[in-house]
Amino acid sequence: MNPQFLKSKSFHKKELPSLTQFKNGILSGDRIILAQAITLIESTKKSHHLLAQELVEACLPFANQSIRLGITGSPGVGKSTFIEALGEYLISKNHRLAVLAIDPSSSLTKGSILGDKTRMMKLSANSSAFIRPSAAGKSLGGVARKTRETIVLCEAAGYDTIIIETVGVGQSETAVHSMVDFFLLLLLPGAGDELQGIKRGIVEMADMIVVNKTDGEREKLAKQTRRAYKNALHLFPAKESNWPTKVNTCSAINSKGIDKIWEQIKSYKSFCEKNKYFEKRRRQQAAYWLSEALDERLRALLFQNKKIKKLYLQLEQDVLAAKLSPFKAVEELMKKMLNT
Amino acid sequence: MNPQFLKSKSFHKKELPSLTQFKNGILSGDRIILAQAITLIESTKKSHHLLAQELVEACLPFANQSIRLGITGSPGVGKSTFIEALGEYLISKNHRLAVLAIDPSSSLTKGSILGDKTRMMKLSANSSAFIRPSAAGKSLGGVARKTRETIVLCEAAGYDTIIIETVGVGQSETAVHSMVDFFLLLLLPGAGDELQGIKRGIVEMADMIVVNKTDGEREKLAKQTRRAYKNALHLFPAKESNWPTKVNTCSAINSKGIDKIWEQIKSYKSFCEKNKYFEKRRRQQAAYWLSEALDERLRALLFQNKKIKKLYLQLEQDVLAAKLSPFKAVEELMKKMLNT
Repeated sequence: MNPQFLKSKSFHKKELPSLTQFKNGILSGDRIILAQAITLIESTKKSHHLLAQELVEACLPFANQSIRLGITGSPGVGKSTFIEALGEYLISKNHRLAVLAIDPSSSLTKGSILGDKTRMMKLSANSSAFIRPSAAGKSLGGVARKTRETIVLCEAAGYDTIIIETVGVGQSETAVHSMVDFFLLLLLPGAGDELQGIKRGIVEMADMIVVNKTDGEREKLAKQTRRAYKNALHLFPAKESNWPTKVNTCSAINSKGIDKIWEQIKSYKSFCEKNKYFEKRRRQQAAYWLSEALDERLRALLFQNKKIKKLYLQLEQDVLAAKLSPFKAVEELMKKMLNT
Repeated sequence: MNPQFLKSKSFHKKELPSLTQFKNGILSGDRIILAQAITLIESTKKSHHLLAQELVEACLPFANQSIRLGITGSPGVGKSTFIEALGEYLISKNHRLAVLAIDPSSSLTKGSILGDKTRMMKLSANSSAFIRPSAAGKSLGGVARKTRETIVLCEAAGYDTIIIETVGVGQSETAVHSMVDFFLLLLLPGAGDELQGIKRGIVEMADMIVVNKTDGEREKLAKQTRRAYKNALHLFPAKESNWPTKVNTCSAINSKGIDKIWEQIKSYKSFCEKNKYFEKRRRQQAAYWLSEALDERLRALLFQNKKIKKLYLQLEQDVLAAKLSPFKAVEELMKKMLNT
């Protein structure tokens, strides 16, 4: 059964599995049920939404036993080849991995970053890997919620390595950084020219930088690039984890350098488990999403009132034109809200 | 009249100037009235709060004509000496400058970062400079609001250069970065060891890095440091402004290198006015603070209900312990809220 089918109309017409059926299916590692459950999470139907929430709660006690990796890089850097190489290596070591993607700019119909069927062909044929195209959604908050909940389901289904892929532009990185344990930035050999379109701040977020396409004539340049980043990172503040950012080279297409990268990711995990940062970061992330979700809900509630929404848009214009202070604008809104 | 007096009890007993008196006083550049108005902004009394808001609104049309500089760096890097040197240079060029500080960790009684009277002695004696110790407050949001409103008053009072000083630790940088046009990071000659306590991400925020204490024996090392950062920054994504981050050396204590730094800040301003980024960033900042202030107010309103606040604290514990998903927790809160 392919996930596209699950998104088709027939999915919504057919009778849904019950909560227990869903839960048992997921816990037994049934990939079809898992895919169906993720579709449920992504559904905008209210009845689906309630069931999805129950399911996520039911799976929570079985989640959390994994490492969550964020992988980012500009288009052309070889993200899917890298994930395919890493994935095959992990499977050879008896790991089970799920690959998800965050790409708020795309919708499912317009082609998400993992939607291309020709990508990760070997990996998607393997029963130890679960690949899911990116969640669609208008708001980054919505996409992030779906992805976080999908992580829970995948972990409950026994996937011990969760990879979240994202396209290094803008806000999605901050969201991904707030849901993974380890953030890996892929670069090309050279002077970082491919970073031009990428939002500043991403390099400092990375726990590891990997110079991909280190093969053939590019090998010398790749090694220079690696050295340059290694030197540069000494000039930046230490990460809260106290883990010094590693810089590696690899040739994903030849599966070269993947083993070393994985060894270092494992070292990171034990390092951060030892100094308690691993758990601390997951707690911080939970607190962050609680706070984000609360703000989003309160705002949605406020804007249900069309008069208030209209007033907000007016006030926003005045604030943007520096005619009104942001704080005064909020006072006005509150006054209106408490009087209606 | 010294600002400490304005914070004393007698300020609150005396009759306050009227809105018109405040406004006219500020517009005519009366420093005593300005100091009093800032105290009003910082006051927690409700009647003061209303008057303060009216005043900020009344001053808004006269604000915005300035450059706002954020200056950060670890303790010991020479921030006050640098600000003093830059300030004196600016005054010699007929500028008028206001120096404010954000330091959410301190309170006025426990000694804020600008509270030390021995700091910036020359500058505080000069009538073209206005120096204000940091705003006290429990929440960063509150401190940020006070600082943003203080900027408006200072600009209306004719200060064309606003310096916001902050101590490079944690969240205050993000707040400052969201209220200034230009962000300057001070470093010491060497390998960035002083950055150890500083939160990652700050280097990538900087529009300019200045290696201070470039004097005597440190000169060679300072030049090496400058070169190292210059090279490193090539490896990072470009800023949205398209302004390439500059790296300079200076000896603030000998006023050496200050002129070049100021020339570059001026170039930045014309560069960003030309490419429209200057205005765009101020708009983005206004939108950011509107959004932050709205969230803060909605949350405060929600937590006025003690039962809801209590429930929130319970749910938060479950979320932190990974027993409950953040999104489900918010649903629970909303249910409770709509039923009370």
